Amino acid sequence: MNRRKFLATTAVATASAAAASAFPKPAISQGRVQWRMVTAWPKGLPGLGTGAENLAKRITEMTEGKISVKVFAGGELVPPNQCFDAVQSGTAEMGHDIAGFNMGKHRAFAYFFGVPFGMTYAEHISWLHYGGGQALWNELSAQFGVRSYAVGNIGSNIFGWFRKPITSLSDMQGLKMRMPGLGGDVIRKLGAQALSLPGGEIYTALQTGTIDAAEFTGPANDLALGFYQAAPFVMYPGIHEPGPVQEVVVNKAKYDALEPTLQKIVDVACQAAHEDMMAEYKWINSQASKTMVEKHGVKFLRLPDEVIAGLGKASGEVLTAERDKLDALGKKIWDSYVAARSQLKSHTEVSEMAFYQARAMDYPFPS
Amino acid sequence: MNRRKFLATTAVATASAAAASAFPKPAISQGRVQWRMVTAWPKGLPGLGTGAENLAKRITEMTEGKISVKVFAGGELVPPNQCFDAVQSGTAEMGHDIAGFNMGKHRAFAYFFGVPFGMTYAEHISWLHYGGGQALWNELSAQFGVRSYAVGNIGSNIFGWFRKPITSLSDMQGLKMRMPGLGGDVIRKLGAQALSLPGGEIYTALQTGTIDAAEFTGPANDLALGFYQAAPFVMYPGIHEPGPVQEVVVNKAKYDALEPTLQKIVDVACQAAHEDMMAEYKWINSQASKTMVEKHGVKFLRLPDEVIAGLGKASGEVLTAERDKLDALGKKIWDSYVAARSQLKSHTEVSEMAFYQARAMDYPFPS
Repeated sequence: MNRRKFLATTAVATASAAAASAFPKPAISQGRVQWRMVTAWPKGLPGLGTGAENLAKRITEMTEGKISVKVFAGGELVPPNQCFDAVQSGTAEMGHDIAGFNMGKHRAFAYFFGVPFGMTYAEHISWLHYGGGQALWNELSAQFGVRSYAVGNIGSNIFGWFRKPITSLSDMQGLKMRMPGLGGDVIRKLGAQALSLPGGEIYTALQTGTIDAAEFTGPANDLALGFYQAAPFVMYPGIHEPGPVQEVVVNKAKYDALEPTLQKIVDVACQAAHEDMMAEYKWINSQASKTMVEKHGVKFLRLPDEVIAGLGKASGEVLTAERDKLDALGKKIWDSYVAARSQLKSHTEVSEMAFYQARAMDYPFPS
Repeated sequence: MNRRKFLATTAVATASAAAASAFPKPAISQGRVQWRMVTAWPKGLPGLGTGAENLAKRITEMTEGKISVKVFAGGELVPPNQCFDAVQSGTAEMGHDIAGFNMGKHRAFAYFFGVPFGMTYAEHISWLHYGGGQALWNELSAQFGVRSYAVGNIGSNIFGWFRKPITSLSDMQGLKMRMPGLGGDVIRKLGAQALSLPGGEIYTALQTGTIDAAEFTGPANDLALGFYQAAPFVMYPGIHEPGPVQEVVVNKAKYDALEPTLQKIVDVACQAAHEDMMAEYKWINSQASKTMVEKHGVKFLRLPDEVIAGLGKASGEVLTAERDKLDALGKKIWDSYVAARSQLKSHTEVSEMAFYQARAMDYPFPS
């Protein structure tokens, strides 16, 4: 999708939110239910949007329509950032967004999206399914009357798009950057100004110089939005989002009312969706990166070591401070996340990381 | 599982293979089918064995027993290395093994297991689902009357267990190492002797000095088999197996006879199983590595740069030579794999790899 189309879609979607009350209520007949999946994404957005649609389609097909899931783009039924509320209140049965949006309700939701210098895709899902993470997420979500699932992952992000390269820690001083959430808190510690613009406003802000830099979801979506035209330098790695998890929340009462077979289908479809979106992003991001470099002259530059170490220290401080803001369950989640990160990080360093470094060495290989 | 129990189970399983013909034929009544899943693994083996059992259970549950899948350990119904043949001939409806075992039938099956210095877990599945890999796998498998699925991944392996550390390229000369498949061809190029022992024979061969080194599946299974008692040095990274994919083969005629809803359930269950096994291995491997270092004094040592570069060059040569051994479809698969690896590798280096390196730097962080 190109930028114009993306923005146009977003605008239309927002406008139609007003007409939300005109949508029909879910029909229930002969044990069949119609579920509404509200999403935080523009219609058809590659990765996030297609991931939501694929998941809905699979649940509908596998249940032979016993659960028929209809997807609504962000703004069609409720505003993009109100998916969780809509599911909590029963306005929708499912919501497709990120747990990071729910930090206003409970700060511990952050650990089910991801944290700066935290866990990556594979580590995060390993913690959820085998290290006790999902049980804690269930406990937290149950307090809000929902069930939560990891249903997608964007993969390790880039740090962002820059009008001028970052060459030292002092370049972070006064930098105006679009960077929401915990990542924003991290760059503030280095003297930057962190803003939280919606996706559709980033391009213009970069072009007019209202901001100096911006992060969004990564090469594929960012290319469609044309950021490179206003800010041609990509700085990496995306230490603020090492493996951003997308979530589905399901209304707990609606889920509990399903027969066990249908519950199982929802569970397994969500797990498959998580891998599916990761696979899609990895492919479209690798394609987009190639296009950006070869066709648009985008420069990929690694952040200098002193900046990485500074961001690491700042992230450690932000994370440490977060623990004090949490209640008992939140502290249990924090402790579990931090311990899992340590254990998995050590193993990753002798497995994936060591392999990637070996593969990047200089030796003849067919390509 | 400890080594004694593992070996005992394997022995029992092999002995009972003789009684295979006594097993009942699959029952079909009222549109219900009973499917037999033969596996290459000992009963209950963490990761490979539990992965097969979880997949069977999920298919049975999601179809409400319309497809009821019963799992057989390696040797119970057919020998561990004959799963593919059993499914091809219809003796079993499903087989759980690795595509690497099928290289005798067609050498291009190697690219659906993984190759030295090739793609990792996330890259491989991205190629399969979004880069055209699965369509090529389907085309190849159809020639043998089966459908193939990626249903698990062991994650980046270690290079192996060594009685003495490798300190230079010359240490590879004459080294006797358990290393099957393409990895074996690679180390032969460096003057080593590559053997292909079954899992149950590795421990004794290391202990008696029949071999100097051995690779198997990685920390968790290897710890259970006690290799560290005979060879206390782990050399890494596992460049021969960057992300070994486990497969399920399904008899094509049996699959084609299913109604579309059941086909969809099999498809989605396999995709979820792939992520599930990866998550399990990542967790149990990270736990086992910790135990090995802290309780058993195992030393993790990185292969020297000259050895890694030598292995890279040898891998490139092995892969180049493989292309000449392939028919037209095989060459299409080879070309697709090599191109996908290049595209994904470039992106991985600015995303996951760069992030892992950043995270491994020295900065204060809670743990």
